[in-house]
Amino acid sequence: MAERTEEQHAEKMKKRQAAHEKIGATKTVDKGLLIVNTGKGKGKTTAALGMVVRAIGHGKKVGVVQFVKGAMTTGEKAVFDAFPNQVEFKPMGEGFTWDTQDRARDIAVAREAWDEVKRMIADPSYDMVLADELNIVLRYDYLPLDEVLEAVTARAPMKHVIVTGRNAPEGLVEIADLVTEMTLVKHPFREQNVRAQAGIEF
Amino acid sequence: MAERTEEQHAEKMKKRQAAHEKIGATKTVDKGLLIVNTGKGKGKTTAALGMVVRAIGHGKKVGVVQFVKGAMTTGEKAVFDAFPNQVEFKPMGEGFTWDTQDRARDIAVAREAWDEVKRMIADPSYDMVLADELNIVLRYDYLPLDEVLEAVTARAPMKHVIVTGRNAPEGLVEIADLVTEMTLVKHPFREQNVRAQAGIEF
Repeated sequence: MAERTEEQHAEKMKKRQAAHEKIGATKTVDKGLLIVNTGKGKGKTTAALGMVVRAIGHGKKVGVVQFVKGAMTTGEKAVFDAFPNQVEFKPMGEGFTWDTQDRARDIAVAREAWDEVKRMIADPSYDMVLADELNIVLRYDYLPLDEVLEAVTARAPMKHVIVTGRNAPEGLVEIADLVTEMTLVKHPFREQNVRAQAGIEF
Repeated sequence: MAERTEEQHAEKMKKRQAAHEKIGATKTVDKGLLIVNTGKGKGKTTAALGMVVRAIGHGKKVGVVQFVKGAMTTGEKAVFDAFPNQVEFKPMGEGFTWDTQDRARDIAVAREAWDEVKRMIADPSYDMVLADELNIVLRYDYLPLDEVLEAVTARAPMKHVIVTGRNAPEGLVEIADLVTEMTLVKHPFREQNVRAQAGIEF
């Protein structure tokens, strides 16, 4: 693009600005969004975490429920702790991991975590609710999808709900407002034997 | 999967656990990663932000330089401000937007922002450096790619560098450790005329 003249550049930017303003003018709706971060790549939980941080910065109250052990850990907890009146963090996934090999217990733990999410969705004091790795639990049929869809659909008009985890069920994607798929292009674990590191994975 | 017996389930989880442990045993390397979040979807900046939050939570020092105006805003700033000794936030992209239509000025602003990134990469006190939307600047040839690749390659062995923005240049992807592409599956802006909202976009 370096070959373009200054005039051509200015012209192009002007057009882009006009297009941007035109689109902006049609955007007039505020709405609580159902956001789904899925795919096999990294960044599903971290992107949700970024939204939580933004919401906190705007003085909003956020509920965070973790369905799978270890998906969120000490790193974010320390930051959440700095905003005790704005974040309620429930790391519920203690039992749900391939370390347990006990489906009945996993289902009970999933139910307990889901009850927390339902409570936060129903409580008007929460502006945003993050159900981290809920998709994993749904994938294993540990919770009835219909119950999840129903609760999420019945949320207050301005409440944001974020669901993360690979293999988002089709029914959830269908009713979602914003769906992003994270795709792995390159990963240091496989190729370089790099282990999980503080600030990156946890 | 609900049809599987308890025994089959336990067996499968056992195998998964064994595989997980086997892979884990090969992961012995700690390394400062070059991380690239690209693609047309959402979540590039927010996922980087999530990593920044994790790093902060682990007591690490992070430098954040914003190349494009508005990519990061008031939401995250309020949270960064809560950790003044751990985060240096430089919102440098004031001039770089299609509102300016002045390439010479945009190049100067990009250069100024890049100088900040270079300083943070060279300064051993920073554990992580986020160059937010640097890819956009590279896409416009506002900075020489070679200079960026050289500085990033010369980073200290344990320093993490995160680069975000769509259209990551091939040369950057080649030397990166972890590359994730965010793909848009569904977006409320286009279909529902929902505007940018606090806690989600800013």
